Amino acid sequence: MSTLIGNVGSLVTNDPSHGSGPLGLLTDAAVLVEDGRVAWVGPAGQAPAADEHVDAQGRALLPGFVDSHAHLVFAGDRTAEFNARMSGRSYTAGGIRTTVAATRAATDAELEANLTRFVNEALRQGTTTIECKSGYGLTVEDEARALRIASKHTTETTYLGAHVVAPEFTDDPAAYVALVTGEMLDACAPHARWVDVFCEQGAFDGDQAREILTAGAARGLIPRVHANQLHHGPGVQLAVELGAASADHCTHLTDADVDALASGGTVATLLPGAEFSTRAPYPDARRLLDAGATVALSTDCNPGSSFTSSMAFCIAVAVREMGMTPDQAVWAATAGGARALRRTDVGLISPGARADLLLLDAPSHVHLAYRPGVPLTAAVWQGGVRAL
Amino acid sequence: MSTLIGNVGSLVTNDPSHGSGPLGLLTDAAVLVEDGRVAWVGPAGQAPAADEHVDAQGRALLPGFVDSHAHLVFAGDRTAEFNARMSGRSYTAGGIRTTVAATRAATDAELEANLTRFVNEALRQGTTTIECKSGYGLTVEDEARALRIASKHTTETTYLGAHVVAPEFTDDPAAYVALVTGEMLDACAPHARWVDVFCEQGAFDGDQAREILTAGAARGLIPRVHANQLHHGPGVQLAVELGAASADHCTHLTDADVDALASGGTVATLLPGAEFSTRAPYPDARRLLDAGATVALSTDCNPGSSFTSSMAFCIAVAVREMGMTPDQAVWAATAGGARALRRTDVGLISPGARADLLLLDAPSHVHLAYRPGVPLTAAVWQGGVRAL
Repeated sequence: MSTLIGNVGSLVTNDPSHGSGPLGLLTDAAVLVEDGRVAWVGPAGQAPAADEHVDAQGRALLPGFVDSHAHLVFAGDRTAEFNARMSGRSYTAGGIRTTVAATRAATDAELEANLTRFVNEALRQGTTTIECKSGYGLTVEDEARALRIASKHTTETTYLGAHVVAPEFTDDPAAYVALVTGEMLDACAPHARWVDVFCEQGAFDGDQAREILTAGAARGLIPRVHANQLHHGPGVQLAVELGAASADHCTHLTDADVDALASGGTVATLLPGAEFSTRAPYPDARRLLDAGATVALSTDCNPGSSFTSSMAFCIAVAVREMGMTPDQAVWAATAGGARALRRTDVGLISPGARADLLLLDAPSHVHLAYRPGVPLTAAVWQGGVRAL
Repeated sequence: MSTLIGNVGSLVTNDPSHGSGPLGLLTDAAVLVEDGRVAWVGPAGQAPAADEHVDAQGRALLPGFVDSHAHLVFAGDRTAEFNARMSGRSYTAGGIRTTVAATRAATDAELEANLTRFVNEALRQGTTTIECKSGYGLTVEDEARALRIASKHTTETTYLGAHVVAPEFTDDPAAYVALVTGEMLDACAPHARWVDVFCEQGAFDGDQAREILTAGAARGLIPRVHANQLHHGPGVQLAVELGAASADHCTHLTDADVDALASGGTVATLLPGAEFSTRAPYPDARRLLDAGATVALSTDCNPGSSFTSSMAFCIAVAVREMGMTPDQAVWAATAGGARALRRTDVGLISPGARADLLLLDAPSHVHLAYRPGVPLTAAVWQGGVRAL
């Protein structure tokens, strides 16, 4: 069974061999999908025969978004905390611990229903690959079940036992690090691809982060790091040193941090939803791009600091606030996310790639920034299957 | 035929007699709709009988958005201009004149199809009342046909012949003002409720704006003004002096401007989409609210400076950037828009009001700011008819 998507007004391939610029842009193009993969890409006039035809009506087709940073295994929400913060009222309870308590109290079925809801919500907005972290359980059992549940819905599962020190260990963080690198890691490693740590004042310092990431790597998990979100710190340089796939947030960077990202193999993943929802200063994508770093955009979807699942929204904010051009932001939300997840089969439209495709109700990918907030999904294919 | 919408987790009535605060919030509520109007509002447990029942499943119900400022009669788009601006490249052609040329060249059917597309796009996002301006024709015939077409789709039609000086009159703006206040007004007044002028450096100065608004008022059109968008200027004070329903943009205000808005009957309509899409500084809603002015939020939907139809996006940006609380922003996007259009039948959920209702896929109206970019429409009723 083959499907030809024809009459594509503007096609983002992210493969410069197919078209112009880093986006490999083609106009008046077609894409052949066969057995869940892209089989052919080229000018509409040269398209091969196919069993089924889809008329893109001159609209824009791009790779499905790759959201490489999301926290989707949780229960409850934090509406009251958000409302208080944005209304200038103090709010003493709350923080991650609110979500930890609700998550621990939830049944497996509740957690899975919530996760499914957000994965589907993201899919309807064009996200065909989504990473999913643990980090709201903070016990051996609760972290392991978070990853077990997540692994039913994505291959990109991340062990984040080191989100914050569990409330039971407030007075003995060293014991919590021992748990995270010991029994909890044993329970979680079989269900995870990645190991992550929140390297930040009030969470885990550079030495603790190194210990946790190294222990994870010894179990075959690949490191990624929440780095330099709220303050300058050792996270970014540690990520590069340990060969992490990605350093995420990167809001507070020294020149040495930027140099490390530019010369190393670690992607800088920027999460504008977090700055938007906490009124924090935005990371400087332009500085990173000018230095030669690879930049990804992701949602950081979580109920505390960034409750958006919209990659289009992140693109629009990155263009408005972070010095990215629309082309760079679209690349970062597709190919950039794939790099941050070390995936070569997604984030591009080229023969052999997974047929993860987003058809926009717009003539150009630029409309993702030009039409902020407007739902622009016309159709989505995931592994060649029409998802909507 | 009556419909009871029950099991409403959180109901924004915008009528303090029904519930708490300026939003008149009720929890565990129900709304009875009969003959296109709201017939009853109250606690779910006291709901009257009805022919049909809708289960809101604990979600939030609010008045449909009232978008009191939009430019929807146009052809073409300005993707290249937007892309150049956001990519730091110069772009010599363009501006409003690009859209004027495309609009003049379009057939009636093309203009109406485009308008319908955007009205429906807005409706799917919860906008049940939308204002629509002329202003891309700038000839007697083209302005009149814009309003004729718009009046088929909304009662809130605004004559904006004074958007910019028509290209044919560049050397003789006084002659253009004479046309706008003479033959063009004659042709347009039968199809319009409002008269508007872009009072700004490079468009129309205070004296010209006064002449245009006064001429329109003499024909029964109610003034509204594009005021103080790009610079300080006389627009706001003129709007208040002439009893305009609304002064729109209000980005650059003196203390005297703020005082005038606070003490007069003119609504300050803020349009964050324009600042978002042009990287301009945002208006200070907090200053206006603290002074006691009435604030509305609208999209300014147009292909040049704010190509969003999303009131939810405007709410999220207003909260992030303009010092509004989520409650204030939601009020401004519903009741505020109604004030700006001098409508007492929309923007609230109270007996006698039009049954224009938005059911969110969320437990609270706060989620409009808390979940930026995420499409949250679960259902929309317009005049009691389920629109989606």
